[in-house]
Amino acid sequence: MEKHSRTDAYTDRYAARAAGMVPSEIRALFAMASRPEVVSLAGGMPYVSALPLDAVGDMIGDLVAGKGADVLQYGSAQGDERLREHICEVMSLEGIQASADDVVVTVGAQQALDLITKIFVDPGDVVLAEAPSYVGALGTFAAYQADVVHVPLDEGGLVPGVLRETLARLRREGRTVKFLYTVPTFQNPAGVTLTTARRAQILEICAEYDVLVVEDNPYGLLGFDGEPMRALRADDSERVIYLGSFSKTIASGLRVGWVLAPHAVRAKLVLAAESAILCPSNFAQLAVREYLATQPWREQIKNFRELYRVRRDAMLEALDQLMPDGCTWTRPRGGFFVWLTLPEGLDAKAMAPRAIAERVAYVPGTGFYADGNGHRHMRLSYCFPEPHRIREGIRRLAAVVEDEIRLRDTFGGAVTGGSTGVQAPGPDVV
Amino acid sequence: MEKHSRTDAYTDRYAARAAGMVPSEIRALFAMASRPEVVSLAGGMPYVSALPLDAVGDMIGDLVAGKGADVLQYGSAQGDERLREHICEVMSLEGIQASADDVVVTVGAQQALDLITKIFVDPGDVVLAEAPSYVGALGTFAAYQADVVHVPLDEGGLVPGVLRETLARLRREGRTVKFLYTVPTFQNPAGVTLTTARRAQILEICAEYDVLVVEDNPYGLLGFDGEPMRALRADDSERVIYLGSFSKTIASGLRVGWVLAPHAVRAKLVLAAESAILCPSNFAQLAVREYLATQPWREQIKNFRELYRVRRDAMLEALDQLMPDGCTWTRPRGGFFVWLTLPEGLDAKAMAPRAIAERVAYVPGTGFYADGNGHRHMRLSYCFPEPHRIREGIRRLAAVVEDEIRLRDTFGGAVTGGSTGVQAPGPDVV
Repeated sequence: MEKHSRTDAYTDRYAARAAGMVPSEIRALFAMASRPEVVSLAGGMPYVSALPLDAVGDMIGDLVAGKGADVLQYGSAQGDERLREHICEVMSLEGIQASADDVVVTVGAQQALDLITKIFVDPGDVVLAEAPSYVGALGTFAAYQADVVHVPLDEGGLVPGVLRETLARLRREGRTVKFLYTVPTFQNPAGVTLTTARRAQILEICAEYDVLVVEDNPYGLLGFDGEPMRALRADDSERVIYLGSFSKTIASGLRVGWVLAPHAVRAKLVLAAESAILCPSNFAQLAVREYLATQPWREQIKNFRELYRVRRDAMLEALDQLMPDGCTWTRPRGGFFVWLTLPEGLDAKAMAPRAIAERVAYVPGTGFYADGNGHRHMRLSYCFPEPHRIREGIRRLAAVVEDEIRLRDTFGGAVTGGSTGVQAPGPDVV
Repeated sequence: MEKHSRTDAYTDRYAARAAGMVPSEIRALFAMASRPEVVSLAGGMPYVSALPLDAVGDMIGDLVAGKGADVLQYGSAQGDERLREHICEVMSLEGIQASADDVVVTVGAQQALDLITKIFVDPGDVVLAEAPSYVGALGTFAAYQADVVHVPLDEGGLVPGVLRETLARLRREGRTVKFLYTVPTFQNPAGVTLTTARRAQILEICAEYDVLVVEDNPYGLLGFDGEPMRALRADDSERVIYLGSFSKTIASGLRVGWVLAPHAVRAKLVLAAESAILCPSNFAQLAVREYLATQPWREQIKNFRELYRVRRDAMLEALDQLMPDGCTWTRPRGGFFVWLTLPEGLDAKAMAPRAIAERVAYVPGTGFYADGNGHRHMRLSYCFPEPHRIREGIRRLAAVVEDEIRLRDTFGGAVTGGSTGVQAPGPDVV
């Protein structure tokens, strides 16, 4: 048999769910976006160079030399117990009272999303998600053949009234809604935060319709003013499944996240984790545990907040000064992202290759919708480039948008549509 | 609503696949087995204390301090390219010629199993597996609602004639067979190795029936005499999907394994990996990469082989000297495990609590079968305890078996059956 026909033969062998796993159209663009002359406002990579690397290196070296028999050995599927106690301490900063016994350590919060979807979602079940929503979550939901129904957000986060209407409609239609997935604080990609008043309303509506809430909160400790927001989980321990991560607050390369779940759900998650990976890495877990036990991590996160605040300011100032009329954008109070809306008739996805030709990259909005919307939007990240590079990137982007507006005024609006819907996320667009 | 009814409410929400995720009945026993006075012949934990921990600690400390910006950052979903090149070098020891582009780095080989099952298996599809088979693989297959059909093995590994008969029967029944899962070398749990002659036959039969082969090979480099066996993958690059791991050869706590797959399948696996975990840990990957690039890893694996050979000898000698008539066991030429068969009328699962009361632990054979068989078998691991402890453990075990034989002769044989089938593996029984 020839090579070509063999490749087709694999296709015939795949499970139905594999049809939901499709490569991103923008992957090729990202390869170009990684060239040094391109200012990438696309990636969600934390600026880990700001960590005290010498101290961390010493700490980890000593840990391996001194406790190698544990650090390099299998651990439990639920994760290291003392690390889970530290995680409870971290969550208490957001008002959460929890037992370490209800925490499962995961390979980043992404694995927590995968495990939750795996244990709850049958093909065709509905998952509610913000519009726009985190691209990696949409990829996971697609891999389990969930039917994602979007609920819009605005500057105050998810809109409670529309959530209620959507749940009422789905109930009338006899649909099974498994959970609401939300990033309430410093949302990815929109950069907005659910208001305190709405938090209570969202919980009330979900109780009324008996829907679980999956609260994904990687950015909660990276707010630029005041104290951390109170987590949804802090006010409902039975309905809310909480996802956390050290990827943004400490280091993404460790791949240490967690899920806090009601006790019965936690037990199921541990079984799902065992069959997926046996156990999370002790090497990474004990490095985090040691870091939290011996290093000034609160001060380090404070330094991160300050660093990202300066970059946020650089981006907003440049946008204010340089973006042509008709563009609007969000003003995040924490986290990594600004969500920009182009003037009517422009298409961020169609524009992306031209932007990269002008040496600036972003993520087109379409990736953050499961329903083909998002063409007029883009996500701009300020987390990784230095402030002067952010300003230069926005300068280049503004020039591209101005050109597009001229083209539109000459030739008419862009033809949007033709989106392929959800695409695999890729670590470059987390 | 009361707490009790809420717990029930979660149960109603789970996906159908969650029914396949059930806790192990022997979990409670294992908690007792971890007491220091118990000789555990149950776990498959490598003896990582034999690593040069000071040198590894120094190496990792320098790596984090010097290359922290990469080590602590997100990587690609496929895994680090230079690590994948080293992996190809490792696989070449088993006759495999492969491109780093066809390798995906995973969270141990367990994640590779999960991803392969995820992309290939629809509920009700058949997966063929040896009888007995690796408990962790059976757990993964159950989580995706596969129908596992066992094919027996003997001292020469999987029996080709029965494989052919089974495939013919399944074809007549119109069943869809997605792949054959096999651990051909130093099998877990049976400790047997597929002969060279049978390797060719198995590949031929699978080609005839157009069935993929998933070759799981964590122990291949841990043979006690002669050169490594030639992998199945070395003779068929289009039909065989190969799983490897550093868990047994270097350190399990790193959770670094890999899958080598035909190119089209590799692409699908990367998408599945992205939606499951975004990317494997750079921290663990670059530690392994640095280790392979700078440390005498071939000598270290040779030391491991010697260490495990001594322990294998200790176990076989003790079994030869102490086990009562009617017991039989395999004589592994590598790897971690001896598979023991009790005399007619004895039940290893029923006997397990009595063994632990006598301060010796093993894994009852039932965990290694998806069909409720295995009651007369047990897996004995010699990888972790020191040789004198192995001898003591076998001494205690022999006394328990003698007691059981006396009971049988007095009261009749054990009532076997009532197995719950596949159970979640747990890192303690890998």
